[in-house]
Amino acid sequence: MDFYFVLDILGTISFAISGVLVALRMRLDPFGVFIIAFVTAVGGGTLRDMLIGNTPVGWLTDSVYIFTIMASVTFAILFREKLRYLAKSLFLFDTIGIGLYTLVGIEKGLTAGLIPIMCIALGTMTACFGGVIRDILCNEIPVIFRKEIYATACIAGGSLYFLARLTPLAEPYCYILGILAVIGIRLWAVRFKVSLPSLYNEKA
Amino acid sequence: MDFYFVLDILGTISFAISGVLVALRMRLDPFGVFIIAFVTAVGGGTLRDMLIGNTPVGWLTDSVYIFTIMASVTFAILFREKLRYLAKSLFLFDTIGIGLYTLVGIEKGLTAGLIPIMCIALGTMTACFGGVIRDILCNEIPVIFRKEIYATACIAGGSLYFLARLTPLAEPYCYILGILAVIGIRLWAVRFKVSLPSLYNEKA
Amino acid sequence: MDFYFVLDILGTISFAISGVLVALRMRLDPFGVFIIAFVTAVGGGTLRDMLIGNTPVGWLTDSVYIFTIMASVTFAILFREKLRYLAKSLFLFDTIGIGLYTLVGIEKGLTAGLIPIMCIALGTMTACFGGVIRDILCNEIPVIFRKEIYATACIAGGSLYFLARLTPLAEPYCYILGILAVIGIRLWAVRFKVSLPSLYNEKA
Repeated sequence: MDFYFVLDILGTISFAISGVLVALRMRLDPFGVFIIAFVTAVGGGTLRDMLIGNTPVGWLTDSVYIFTIMASVTFAILFREKLRYLAKSLFLFDTIGIGLYTLVGIEKGLTAGLIPIMCIALGTMTACFGGVIRDILCNEIPVIFRKEIYATACIAGGSLYFLARLTPLAEPYCYILGILAVIGIRLWAVRFKVSLPSLYNEKA
Repeated sequence: MDFYFVLDILGTISFAISGVLVALRMRLDPFGVFIIAFVTAVGGGTLRDMLIGNTPVGWLTDSVYIFTIMASVTFAILFREKLRYLAKSLFLFDTIGIGLYTLVGIEKGLTAGLIPIMCIALGTMTACFGGVIRDILCNEIPVIFRKEIYATACIAGGSLYFLARLTPLAEPYCYILGILAVIGIRLWAVRFKVSLPSLYNEKA
Repeated sequence: MDFYFVLDILGTISFAISGVLVALRMRLDPFGVFIIAFVTAVGGGTLRDMLIGNTPVGWLTDSVYIFTIMASVTFAILFREKLRYLAKSLFLFDTIGIGLYTLVGIEKGLTAGLIPIMCIALGTMTACFGGVIRDILCNEIPVIFRKEIYATACIAGGSLYFLARLTPLAEPYCYILGILAVIGIRLWAVRFKVSLPSLYNEKA
């Protein structure tokens, strides 16, 4: 359990910081910044827990999440000038977050006895939902509808994890492979401006 | 159970296609189209299952929903030119969807031991919530707040179902009556531009 | 139980009326007004019940809520001219609502065996979520992101309640103290235009 727990906390930190960065750009007050960071970090896991009936949801019973978010927000606010100058930091924290949360969600799905395709759907939702709520609350175009590959990276990385489990590779390595696949695919897609084929005649 | 299952699948297909039509109008990429179709088709049932504590929610445990949606999306994308030229097809699929889902929701409410008024509320939410999320994500005015009669049709059809159950009419006929009532009331309201009375002085 | 039940009903009435006032300002039809009032009144408690796994959620099993909302909506629509002329009535009903719901949420958290900090988080969500959904559906800036102190008042009042419980003060008085603290802090903050310190250089 320890191993999965560490992933979960790392994902929480990444998403909390990505939430702070969006909230600062909107010039919210300190409490608004905390709310956005909190929603971004726990939104996906909360939806996941409600969907599979894992209640009270995770962050309510384990106070480590709320304290992790508080610490991350304090850190991110204190060093906001530094984080802001790194133009790509929001993108980076968000990408690490979806990588970690995809696999955390898959693990919870397996524990709930779901079949692989549902685990992947659950992992993708865990990864994407926090960012979607963050963007709806902040009035930005939800991240999954922008041109870049986003949820598709979660699905691909999740599928790769299930493929790796068919090999003799030890479980934790399959996990790490899955996480790196999600992160790598998204980095690669953004770097080379890869997007899904269009359904529309460009001239239309 | 077979009978209700068929209704549920038909509702899923109708809503998935209505989601594709909205997503195509927004020129989303193929994955975005699938997401909108998925959310429209499972949104109402997911909320219903979470409200009554029927977890893991339906689509997670029964993979027929996700495959039905995939097939419907593929079909709707392949024949999108045909569907698009039918100016009224979105309206039609959406209307069939709310008719079917209202009664599916009522049936789940009865199974959970709820009283009729709560079953009707649950059925109305099952029917309307997917379309509301679709419209919020796509930045359209949510369907229930437009001028036409929408949720009111679900409530009326649901009430008619409970009235029919007081007669000697066999259960499945009551269901079909309820479904047709929802569809009929909405078609009639849109055809004759019927709307609820205004609360405001028109000159104001 | 009676005492907490009365608080819950009073909160339901306050939020239902605040919903009607926002919906009337948007010139919705009678059904739209009811929907907004309903969502505002039950939204926070529904989220709370889903988070702690208290399902079927409260309003589905106890019909007093739905009838209370119907009665409040009818009353508020009939006397809308009077309510509208009271420029501050929306603010007042909303503030009473968050005061009551914060403590109702805390009580449910205690019943579910949660620790104080989680009870306060749950109470704050119970209080704020209905208003946030109301504002998202009505396309207003969500109430928690406006300049005035809002969720902060819930957190402060909730903390005061737990402090009061450490004294010999009888339980119901602690409750009433907590409710009045939330309401008082918000009234005071709005009256004197108190807001949280800014994170930004004003000249920037």
